[in-house]
Amino acid sequence: MAVGLVLLPLSTGPACVCAQLSLPHLGRQAELRSIVGDRLTTQPAALEQHGHDESYHRGRPPQAVLFPECTEEVSRIVRAAAAARCPVIPFGAGTSLEGHIAALRGGICLDLSRMNRVLQVSPEDMDCWVEAGVTRKQLNQHLHDTGLFFPVDPGADATLGGMAATRASGTNAVRYGTMRDNVRSLTVVLPDGTITKTGRCVRKSSAGYDLTALFVGSEGTLGVITEVALRLYGQPEATAAAVCAFGDLKGAVETATLIMQVGIPVARIELLDDLQIDAINKYSHTDLQVAPTLFFEFNGSPAAVKEAAEAAGAVAADYGGSNFGWAEKEEERRQLWSARHSAYYAARALRPGCSGFPTDLCVPLSKLTETVLASQELCRRHGLLAPLVGHVGDSNFHMLLIINTENAEEVARAKQVVADMVHLAQDAGGTCTGEHGIGYGKLCHLEREHGLPALQAMHAIKAALDPLDIMNPGKLGSDPASFAAAGRLVDP
Amino acid sequence: MAVGLVLLPLSTGPACVCAQLSLPHLGRQAELRSIVGDRLTTQPAALEQHGHDESYHRGRPPQAVLFPECTEEVSRIVRAAAAARCPVIPFGAGTSLEGHIAALRGGICLDLSRMNRVLQVSPEDMDCWVEAGVTRKQLNQHLHDTGLFFPVDPGADATLGGMAATRASGTNAVRYGTMRDNVRSLTVVLPDGTITKTGRCVRKSSAGYDLTALFVGSEGTLGVITEVALRLYGQPEATAAAVCAFGDLKGAVETATLIMQVGIPVARIELLDDLQIDAINKYSHTDLQVAPTLFFEFNGSPAAVKEAAEAAGAVAADYGGSNFGWAEKEEERRQLWSARHSAYYAARALRPGCSGFPTDLCVPLSKLTETVLASQELCRRHGLLAPLVGHVGDSNFHMLLIINTENAEEVARAKQVVADMVHLAQDAGGTCTGEHGIGYGKLCHLEREHGLPALQAMHAIKAALDPLDIMNPGKLGSDPASFAAAGRLVDP
Repeated sequence: MAVGLVLLPLSTGPACVCAQLSLPHLGRQAELRSIVGDRLTTQPAALEQHGHDESYHRGRPPQAVLFPECTEEVSRIVRAAAAARCPVIPFGAGTSLEGHIAALRGGICLDLSRMNRVLQVSPEDMDCWVEAGVTRKQLNQHLHDTGLFFPVDPGADATLGGMAATRASGTNAVRYGTMRDNVRSLTVVLPDGTITKTGRCVRKSSAGYDLTALFVGSEGTLGVITEVALRLYGQPEATAAAVCAFGDLKGAVETATLIMQVGIPVARIELLDDLQIDAINKYSHTDLQVAPTLFFEFNGSPAAVKEAAEAAGAVAADYGGSNFGWAEKEEERRQLWSARHSAYYAARALRPGCSGFPTDLCVPLSKLTETVLASQELCRRHGLLAPLVGHVGDSNFHMLLIINTENAEEVARAKQVVADMVHLAQDAGGTCTGEHGIGYGKLCHLEREHGLPALQAMHAIKAALDPLDIMNPGKLGSDPASFAAAGRLVDP
Repeated sequence: MAVGLVLLPLSTGPACVCAQLSLPHLGRQAELRSIVGDRLTTQPAALEQHGHDESYHRGRPPQAVLFPECTEEVSRIVRAAAAARCPVIPFGAGTSLEGHIAALRGGICLDLSRMNRVLQVSPEDMDCWVEAGVTRKQLNQHLHDTGLFFPVDPGADATLGGMAATRASGTNAVRYGTMRDNVRSLTVVLPDGTITKTGRCVRKSSAGYDLTALFVGSEGTLGVITEVALRLYGQPEATAAAVCAFGDLKGAVETATLIMQVGIPVARIELLDDLQIDAINKYSHTDLQVAPTLFFEFNGSPAAVKEAAEAAGAVAADYGGSNFGWAEKEEERRQLWSARHSAYYAARALRPGCSGFPTDLCVPLSKLTETVLASQELCRRHGLLAPLVGHVGDSNFHMLLIINTENAEEVARAKQVVADMVHLAQDAGGTCTGEHGIGYGKLCHLEREHGLPALQAMHAIKAALDPLDIMNPGKLGSDPASFAAAGRLVDP
């Protein structure tokens, strides 16, 4: 197995990492400094921050963090890293949730936050090119006066490069799709430092293997995404929101199912269970009825919005929904979605001092009710507090386990329950992750989901494009067993 | 370079192919017959038919055609072929247009037309699993009473496996997307005979490299697609069509551009130039105004359809569109789209006895007018008759060159003009193919479009997944120069 070379004076790198590395090549740091100047840090706090995402997974710091400012700099850095067999870990906003950025084998972190220019907006083509470090909120501010917007919204103000790398989605994917559907092309620095585009920025093409789709969701393991071409949409003329409480979860899910089937155009349709509504009432000072609830958003022309909201309300009434009221006023809508976006914090506030342990399952819509009920029952049986939120139109849901991470037994219990829930979803024909990705936290679930031949195909692709295994090693394309055997995998 | 072994008695294979092959292994035919019984033919007419698609490209017959009836049979055949280093060419309906199925290095053709079962329809999940040989019309007939339909419509009644393999689209991709957007999962027989699924059949997943997207558009070069999971849609409650003539092409394109920008929901928006309208009038006995014209289709609720049609009509009027009339009657709509679907035949009827030579360019919408005008001028300057049809909402257009293929000089001139048009599109930021694919006809254009590093990445993926190079060799993933140097490429 290739071993990353120490790029830095030992005195500045964290000892625990350096101890694992052979043969320090101190000269390399000068080479990196010749590329990025003083935009390189080895400060322990910065290393720590760049090796840990927003999840409960244990982080691992890189040996240095570099802040490149353009694709050409990234190319030169990766070329130098390849020559030294040094791992390279791309970093956006650090908001991922499965240990994606932990430097499992040391190496350098490329923080792309300084690559934050909107390069081009083409209103006629309804697309744009941005550098990978532009965040989604920054892009939408930039677009504000153009009449266009970029819809994919994972909650966090992630970078668009990071969202592409994890195939992110969120609440309005039901209407606008995920990053898979909205990335038109990418600029990528390949593992040997070569710069390439993954395809032309057009609405469709049949010209060769779909490299764009291959890099979307590749989690930094096949190269560094440095620029992203995104599809844009016209800002809707009108928007309305609605809330509807149900007697039971089944009624809420059946309402969502029928709305999808008959094609009522919803922009968002979110499921929250009674526990989550209770948490939101306490946290956001709302007075929502404590019951399984759907939050809706509709957009389009005023007539289309009215028609869609009325049709959705009629379906909800048929399945026991009550108090379906819809609001066009921006302030009311803002309050509602602000409460929804605070769900994670609201859930954590139910047990002050504890951490969130979010799962991310996606199953066929026909299996959603049974999978959610079985997941709730699992948590109850194991004494775990776990409110539910779900992008129900996409049949993707999160159980937000609230855990005292100081209690090793409780953490172990939670991990087992999460693994059991993954198996429930997979057995229902679903996936272990709808939108958070694999990182190292879910690497162990891939073989069960895809089978060995598909997993081997992924490993073959990784080996073909990154033969030195320097791109974010120990994540996608790596074999967890052999990585663990080498003592390099952080315990998930 | 690996050489396909003769699987058949020399007396039954076409001599021109066998002459290129070393060392006949006659015993292999018995092995294949033990798998498919008498569903194997070496009749010259059948071989000829299976080596030639619907294009002007020269075909090349395989040495045998096999008709497997299930994935397991395909697996056994591919395993035997891999052991013999024998090329394998998957075949759907043979309606491709870039020489995709020509057996450039001999080998066996797998005609999947007997794998024509609809395996499962899940109305709740709005998806289905079909065998690769099911055609799109067959699927829609099957779905008729479910309230669902599958929208992707390339014109020809292609098989869904073939449509997945070429990343097909067509007139209503503007509303429903292409095969890239509508394939949820695939069953694939890998080049070593292993059977795998490319992902779970769910609305979204972030679990690993997107193998589904990699196989969609891979044109049989990475494995054999044997089953396809497809996204389905609710049959629209109401549908209306409209026609609008314009003073010039620019007005028509600007109308389409603005309609896309403001997000008026069109199900189809097709551009035809005056030459094509004239051809349709003569062929389909219509009396359309001979002018650049847009054909529209709208669907949704009756109110939504009315609103969309009125909004589109208002935009058209602003750009010099006249006689915008919309029809909800099915008979009128049927006539209109029948005329549109006959465009290719209508164009050919302008010069009886001649062949069609369709191009397939896709550019950014902002470059459509100039690219189309420049393409028309090129054809005019070189004395070539070439009506235009275009999926203008996707900025994808076809110039239908009508050529006397008996006239070598004219054919050479047409090829040069087509190459020049490809360069025009690429120089405008576009692609050499929006929906027809690469086959061997456009292999020479890939490097100019993607650059060498991306092309090398494609070759690396091909070599990683098909190290013996048995899957449809000489197409995607092959280097046209080295293939030609080996004397194996049919002259495009």
